[in-house]
Amino acid sequence: MKQSSSQIPRPLHERIVASLADVLGDGKHALHEPSFMGEELQCLKECISSTYVSSVGPFVDRFEKAIAEYTGSRRAVAVVNGTSALQVALQLAGVKAGDEVVMPALTFVGTANAARYLGATPHFADSSLNNLGLDPDALQEWLKYVVEKTSTGSRNRFTGSRISTLVPMHTFGHPCEIERLVGLANDYQLRVVEDAAESLGSYFGDRHTGTFGCCGILSFNGNKIITTGGGGAILTNDIGLADHAKHLTTTAKVNHRWDYVHDEVGYNFRMPNLNAALGCAQLESMPKLLASKRSLTSLYSKCFTDIAEVTLMKEPHGCTSNYWLQTLILAESVSDQRDPILEATNNFGLSTRPAWRPIHQLPPYINCPCAPLPVAESLALRIINIPSSAKLVCRA
Amino acid sequence: MKQSSSQIPRPLHERIVASLADVLGDGKHALHEPSFMGEELQCLKECISSTYVSSVGPFVDRFEKAIAEYTGSRRAVAVVNGTSALQVALQLAGVKAGDEVVMPALTFVGTANAARYLGATPHFADSSLNNLGLDPDALQEWLKYVVEKTSTGSRNRFTGSRISTLVPMHTFGHPCEIERLVGLANDYQLRVVEDAAESLGSYFGDRHTGTFGCCGILSFNGNKIITTGGGGAILTNDIGLADHAKHLTTTAKVNHRWDYVHDEVGYNFRMPNLNAALGCAQLESMPKLLASKRSLTSLYSKCFTDIAEVTLMKEPHGCTSNYWLQTLILAESVSDQRDPILEATNNFGLSTRPAWRPIHQLPPYINCPCAPLPVAESLALRIINIPSSAKLVCRA
Repeated sequence: MKQSSSQIPRPLHERIVASLADVLGDGKHALHEPSFMGEELQCLKECISSTYVSSVGPFVDRFEKAIAEYTGSRRAVAVVNGTSALQVALQLAGVKAGDEVVMPALTFVGTANAARYLGATPHFADSSLNNLGLDPDALQEWLKYVVEKTSTGSRNRFTGSRISTLVPMHTFGHPCEIERLVGLANDYQLRVVEDAAESLGSYFGDRHTGTFGCCGILSFNGNKIITTGGGGAILTNDIGLADHAKHLTTTAKVNHRWDYVHDEVGYNFRMPNLNAALGCAQLESMPKLLASKRSLTSLYSKCFTDIAEVTLMKEPHGCTSNYWLQTLILAESVSDQRDPILEATNNFGLSTRPAWRPIHQLPPYINCPCAPLPVAESLALRIINIPSSAKLVCRA
Repeated sequence: MKQSSSQIPRPLHERIVASLADVLGDGKHALHEPSFMGEELQCLKECISSTYVSSVGPFVDRFEKAIAEYTGSRRAVAVVNGTSALQVALQLAGVKAGDEVVMPALTFVGTANAARYLGATPHFADSSLNNLGLDPDALQEWLKYVVEKTSTGSRNRFTGSRISTLVPMHTFGHPCEIERLVGLANDYQLRVVEDAAESLGSYFGDRHTGTFGCCGILSFNGNKIITTGGGGAILTNDIGLADHAKHLTTTAKVNHRWDYVHDEVGYNFRMPNLNAALGCAQLESMPKLLASKRSLTSLYSKCFTDIAEVTLMKEPHGCTSNYWLQTLILAESVSDQRDPILEATNNFGLSTRPAWRPIHQLPPYINCPCAPLPVAESLALRIINIPSSAKLVCRA
């Protein structure tokens, strides 16, 4: 609709649609589509020809080695998805039924589910405006208040439960302050399981995300920077934990030429060879994908400088983000415009989404322990992810 | 080795190797390889071209519809593997933490694990010599002994726990006496979750296995009659349960254009579209695969008639087996020959395996409630599965 006068500013949602259209041109655009610009079909063909499409096969080994090499982790264990990776990583970190697991409220519900599968309780902490991940200052203050230190670790002085583990997450690919968070975890004898589901290709300093805790996890879901259809990986520098991860995720079957003995309660979580074949091809494209995503940030950056009410999320100082999902943060004064913007952009064919509803507001988790969550609650009303596919810049 | 005299019979393992070689010819033969003789590559190519390789996509819908149609189930929900299908099916059947779930001792450990994931306890029952599945006579006698009937259902009079569910399984594709077992379950107010992981294409009378209980499950692991790499499905005639199965297996996300609300503790168990693409192609080959497997049974049948100490497993009366895994049963008098036979056949390049170690003998489950298990324990020492791939008869 044409504005009749420059004195009446166009509504924010119209300006955002216009800026997006400036960068993306006409047509519909998904939030995040995978890019298949390498050997994907060849790898799948090779996999089918070999008949090894399932639980064993050379692509799984190759993918695990390639992921370990790419991230600088000593070992990677490929599994069926990121949630399963988290479940096993938490178990390896020693999470027991009845424990509390500290995690951001502002993350995907899978993190809370993974703890719950083990009979543990999520304990939600606040986020940082700088990087959208756990805020170490707020966490320190909260732990000081909530934790009673005992000879064997940390106890929640209000619930009486052991607090055993901290799960930092790198939101939309932006590294959180992982070094400070690991330091804090050490102070409180918490193990760290690092949720790098969204941050393949992101670095804190020169160290890849997911390699700071006793275990880290990755996701290769279809919406991630690379995909295996469905998939995930457990990262660890501890060979013993890696071997145990492999054992647990392959039904805890004891190696034997023919006998079927399982020595603990394991999981059927291994990544099928078919999916690993796709992953091997995808991983080769990482440099191109990262470059495309960075270019997209530059393009968006130029377009959104004129809109004072929104900030385009940039990589934190000293970090390298993979820019998995491009993110606008609305000013607090216009947080009531979130839904009109989502409505307008999606109606225009430009897929956008808000952040997750913070987990402490979801029915299954409303009674879980919570730190004060002013930032997470505010961010949840102000985040809008905009089309982020690598192919928006570099077409496959 | 040439025998010097007809008076000295050749050892059993040598005769078995010779019979197998008669049918299979020279060369190495796997226990069970998938056959890709249809549109597998085309479907994968189409899937990659669409970029929908992951959690949503037309192949998942198509595969679910095709599986429902094939089995005669009103609905099928495709998931990541058979164990996950069982876990969700048990939850849908109402299994709660602390319940006991009655299942065969002689089955894959995944069944016990699925119960354990829900905090329930497996309760093991004996097998039938006729079909290798649960023996309804033995089960009836055992339930009479162990169950205290209450107004709300069955209680184990020794442990005090509720016995809520029965999980019959169709071993190696041979239908068990599912109608009698369902009748027995009704007498004791037990829900039935039917484990048809191994029996796609098998019928009790003219009704497909997996469609008798409140839910049934299938597996499409790489060793099954058809494969999706990794995969499974939940079958049910109850539309409400089917919708709930879909909801639970897709992270319990409430349908909304952009909002991320999850209203219960769900699972990331959906089958990726890539794997469903393979499944759609595979399912088309079922008639050919079933015919090949039946021919293989005939060939083996002729070769093994001369060996009095072994019986080739045939489909139970009134049933149609898919003959997924061809099965020799050793006479009790030669059960000590199982390992020499496994050794000789595998050394010869013919992959063979015993049945599973019965679950009540596995470390995580040794303290679970057990009926007397004389048949399961005997069968475990006498079952040998021999090469069973469809392509051994009908080459792709």
